[in-house]
Amino acid sequence: MKTINIIGSGNVAHHLVRALAELSNYKIQNVAVRSLDKIADFFPNDLIVPTIEDLKPADITLISVTDSAIAEVSERIPYKDALVVHTSGTTALEVLNDKNRKGVFYPLQTFSKNKEINFKEVPLCLEAVNTDDLIELKLLAEELSDKVFEISSEQRKSLHVAAVFVSNFTNHLYSIGNEICKENNIPFDILKPLINETADKINYLNPKDAQTGPAVRFDQKTIKAHQDFLTNKTYKEIYNLITQSIQKNV
Amino acid sequence: MKTINIIGSGNVAHHLVRALAELSNYKIQNVAVRSLDKIADFFPNDLIVPTIEDLKPADITLISVTDSAIAEVSERIPYKDALVVHTSGTTALEVLNDKNRKGVFYPLQTFSKNKEINFKEVPLCLEAVNTDDLIELKLLAEELSDKVFEISSEQRKSLHVAAVFVSNFTNHLYSIGNEICKENNIPFDILKPLINETADKINYLNPKDAQTGPAVRFDQKTIKAHQDFLTNKTYKEIYNLITQSIQKNV
Repeated sequence: MKTINIIGSGNVAHHLVRALAELSNYKIQNVAVRSLDKIADFFPNDLIVPTIEDLKPADITLISVTDSAIAEVSERIPYKDALVVHTSGTTALEVLNDKNRKGVFYPLQTFSKNKEINFKEVPLCLEAVNTDDLIELKLLAEELSDKVFEISSEQRKSLHVAAVFVSNFTNHLYSIGNEICKENNIPFDILKPLINETADKINYLNPKDAQTGPAVRFDQKTIKAHQDFLTNKTYKEIYNLITQSIQKNV
Repeated sequence: MKTINIIGSGNVAHHLVRALAELSNYKIQNVAVRSLDKIADFFPNDLIVPTIEDLKPADITLISVTDSAIAEVSERIPYKDALVVHTSGTTALEVLNDKNRKGVFYPLQTFSKNKEINFKEVPLCLEAVNTDDLIELKLLAEELSDKVFEISSEQRKSLHVAAVFVSNFTNHLYSIGNEICKENNIPFDILKPLINETADKINYLNPKDAQTGPAVRFDQKTIKAHQDFLTNKTYKEIYNLITQSIQKNV
């Protein structure tokens, strides 16, 4: 039975704690959280420690804190020569402190505390300095998920940018759609089948081939009507810029 | 048994022809298409007419052509006092020719010819000048779909703008993600669970509450790294503009 420490209480840490608790070959040793206020009921109360220095040594330590804190957190870990990995999409493996063996365990998904997720479907992007550690991470990852990838730091960086476009930015577009509906007394629910179908479509078509709408049709009359409709300056700028970008890519 | 004519052979017309052919209380009378090259095998060969003037009168005529052609097409219909509706999100009801009774039958979905769709899940937005016609459209719509809405021209206009943001623009963000992956030898498949989850999330959370990523965290270091990574000028502009917009909305 391998032991695991988790440091952090954010969205990623929440879903990791929940998923790791289900595994039969791994045991959560400790979870280091700064404040008890932020954690869900399913956190293992008896295993929680208030500071990183209180962690007992474990085979694998997952650092799941804000990117800027990873270096300092890894330095404060009170043991050495263990496998310590972070879960960040943007942070280089090198920022981890040298006293432990280093790796990356990046779950490429959007996590919110209040939305359950099937961890088997979460792509896990792995990296490690040495081969044995990569194998160790793979064993853990394959118990958690059906989608395990070996991804270099360089690739991970580009993947994170791509993820921001397809997820964070997409969600903001949903937010703009929601706002437009609200202002015009239309239930946002009416847009949900469209949102789902747009996402589903790319399982069958290349996104470029799936492109529809006035921009790709060069339907300037409709585009003009939409520009006139939009009073929010930023939303109009987004409309114009993405329209131009679609038309450049045709 | 009510009869229906369809004019057009684009994405919307394709899915309408397929869905209407399944109904037991309606019968396709004619389909007017300009060119036989563009139509799928399931089009009813014996009912196809090459010009609008060849259409036999029907109870309901669905005009599903490019927005700018709707007025002219409706004028060329060789009968009068029938119910004639268009399927456009942006076109006013008034552009339809006065010789027939007017309405709108707008399916709010993204249609591609090569992607099958469950029409029962397609929101249908209806409008008509008189109540009897609205009832007639509702009867048809409710046979086709479980999601039928009465939507005014004004609301439809705003809904179409919202649809462009949540669907056409979202798809372009998928396309940018795909391009970034390709350039860095990463399979686009790795992003698909994230894309699906981002869309699924808004069934449970308000999009504003579902927002994650460096912008909403004001993680300027990551934002800066992403800006440095992006070499495509337009994509960098999109990155900056949507990041600003997310941060304005926090």
